[in-house]
Amino acid sequence: MTSREQAEALDAADPIGFLRTEFVGGDGGPIYLDGNSLGRQPRATAGRLAAAVAEWSDRLVAGWDDWIDLPTAVGDRIGALVGAGPGQVVVADSTTVNLFKLALAALDARPGRGAIVGDGDDFPTDRYVLQGLVERTGRPLQAEITPGAALVCLSAVHFRTGAVADMAGVTAAAHDAGALVLWDLSHAAGCVPVELDGIGADLAVGCSYKYLNGGPGAPAWLYVRRELQSRLRPPIWGWWGQRDQFALGESYDPVPGIDRFQAGTPPVMGIAAVAAGIEPLLAAGMPALWGKTQALVALLAERVEERLAPLGARLASPGEPSRRGGHLAVAHPEAWSLTRCLIERGEVIGDFRPPDVLRLAPVAAYTRFVDVWDAVERIAAVLADPRLGDRPAPPRRVT
Amino acid sequence: MTSREQAEALDAADPIGFLRTEFVGGDGGPIYLDGNSLGRQPRATAGRLAAAVAEWSDRLVAGWDDWIDLPTAVGDRIGALVGAGPGQVVVADSTTVNLFKLALAALDARPGRGAIVGDGDDFPTDRYVLQGLVERTGRPLQAEITPGAALVCLSAVHFRTGAVADMAGVTAAAHDAGALVLWDLSHAAGCVPVELDGIGADLAVGCSYKYLNGGPGAPAWLYVRRELQSRLRPPIWGWWGQRDQFALGESYDPVPGIDRFQAGTPPVMGIAAVAAGIEPLLAAGMPALWGKTQALVALLAERVEERLAPLGARLASPGEPSRRGGHLAVAHPEAWSLTRCLIERGEVIGDFRPPDVLRLAPVAAYTRFVDVWDAVERIAAVLADPRLGDRPAPPRRVT
Repeated sequence: MTSREQAEALDAADPIGFLRTEFVGGDGGPIYLDGNSLGRQPRATAGRLAAAVAEWSDRLVAGWDDWIDLPTAVGDRIGALVGAGPGQVVVADSTTVNLFKLALAALDARPGRGAIVGDGDDFPTDRYVLQGLVERTGRPLQAEITPGAALVCLSAVHFRTGAVADMAGVTAAAHDAGALVLWDLSHAAGCVPVELDGIGADLAVGCSYKYLNGGPGAPAWLYVRRELQSRLRPPIWGWWGQRDQFALGESYDPVPGIDRFQAGTPPVMGIAAVAAGIEPLLAAGMPALWGKTQALVALLAERVEERLAPLGARLASPGEPSRRGGHLAVAHPEAWSLTRCLIERGEVIGDFRPPDVLRLAPVAAYTRFVDVWDAVERIAAVLADPRLGDRPAPPRRVT
Repeated sequence: MTSREQAEALDAADPIGFLRTEFVGGDGGPIYLDGNSLGRQPRATAGRLAAAVAEWSDRLVAGWDDWIDLPTAVGDRIGALVGAGPGQVVVADSTTVNLFKLALAALDARPGRGAIVGDGDDFPTDRYVLQGLVERTGRPLQAEITPGAALVCLSAVHFRTGAVADMAGVTAAAHDAGALVLWDLSHAAGCVPVELDGIGADLAVGCSYKYLNGGPGAPAWLYVRRELQSRLRPPIWGWWGQRDQFALGESYDPVPGIDRFQAGTPPVMGIAAVAAGIEPLLAAGMPALWGKTQALVALLAERVEERLAPLGARLASPGEPSRRGGHLAVAHPEAWSLTRCLIERGEVIGDFRPPDVLRLAPVAAYTRFVDVWDAVERIAAVLADPRLGDRPAPPRRVT
């Protein structure tokens, strides 16, 4: 592509361009390329939350007659985005807590010393949860799938580079080794095509505040393949997973289905926001979203090579389009200063990721092709600014 | 008390009667005596949530500059209600997950086979969490504190009877035995006086949707005594407890303070609602709230004995006022039908608790003395109705 007009033409022909108007803001001001950290807000969210607030004040405790089904009802709708049939996804807890619950449940189902397989460069919380389970169980942690492994826990899309895993191949290899596989779909769900049922995945978790637009700290979700549900025992025995819950029975006796992987009382307000967040995605459908994502990412990669490589930046994501997800890593020695400068000048909002990456996500639901074009031009202007290196080092959280 | 006029006089003299107007609804319709299951909604909540929604749409990911401090800032304010100095309470996860985190952290800090001490009649999720830890660790579960015990985990106010525990005495006995003590304050916080620091409590958890008015499934909170924070290791190693979190360091290295007991990304919308929920309580102060609670509960107990005992009901809570918290259990062979009938007729909203209890909570922040008077009269009218026994059995949740 050699001109902004060509980007405009792509927008004019975009079959899901209408989705953009279903989100708040986005015209003028900085170009938001950080929807894989915190997704934009659907216009429907405020009303949906206000309705949930009114349900609480109007119905008080009687609201539970309906709220009780929210975790699985919204879970099923998330399932439709990741190739999971009904009754296998539930909205609950945080991604971290869900990772812990499912990873430990899997290890409990593979007694002995079978290894935990993880990626040493995975997102921190995934690594930390596995490190904690290594300490607790004494199992080895390794990067390779070897016979007798107990659990393979990986992200489907790498949080920094956007590299996509071979989900089908890894799942098959895990099963060949006798392991259960747990996918973290935080950077995948609502962005790249995922077929959990189709590839025979065992377990998955994901957050709802990135591509699913559920808002800051939105409740996460988890998937357990139907055949495994009654065979796996969650490590946290909570009353929300109990059979005939309100009989308050003496001993823990979990329901056979996906509800056993709930623990405490579900967050009704948070789930209402998640329900609003995924609606634009369901309206468009994953094939249309993924088609546009691929085109946006291809344009971004091309423009990075064309405009930013001569200014000292380089693409730190897979060069092969089929190995890329929905975001790209742009490496530059001054990536921290670059990221801050772009934000402070109101040009482009991206994410700094240590040590040297500006992470950019053009999100199909609300990013235009001209946004990609303009963002690269703005980044180029900042990179050409000799004062770029003047910014202080990243702040450290000291709590 | 022998007349409704006397109840009216108490309301007229109530120094915190003004709080009632800070909650939505409550005039006309059924009398709500179920605030210890789901608290009423403060008038400020809708606006506070709308503001949080606007922060998300306006500031997008930059909102985290402020949101990051919400869990401890609101935690400190909850701490002020339970006698906990700053830096010891954090809003996070659900009560169930927090119970699991703190109970297992305590057991890890007491290696060996020391017993878990729990109450076989405690709230189900407390019992189930402990049962799960018994299965995982092979430790004995017992009702008595014996030398060498590892953990004492009890509710400060009994979920059904409202009986209050001797928190100071039990804490001292636990320490004498060498155990750590974990208090569930779900039915206590915001209702009865609690002095976590004063009695030297080690650990506590509580929900935010009962007396704290945070809304259905509001995020819960946890307390860890300052001296213990750096010595206890949470079992779920999450990135939100990591030192210098955004450096994304290789190995888990938790912050020394209370933040290490967070796991995943905190629920910003939910915490905003909790912040609104506790404001009326902080405005009134616990002494005023507890003074009124005691008077309300005394009136309710007196009226139950006077009006309902002759109709076959009996008080299934401690008779001694000093042993009672903020709610009472009214036992009746047809308690299920009684509860449903009162709700269906729009008279009184209470809770059925198996096997035979109608649970009633007059909440100081928004219940009037005349509400207690009227509620008992309405209950008496239903009890006198010969069709009471016609209702079907409680439904069973079959998922």
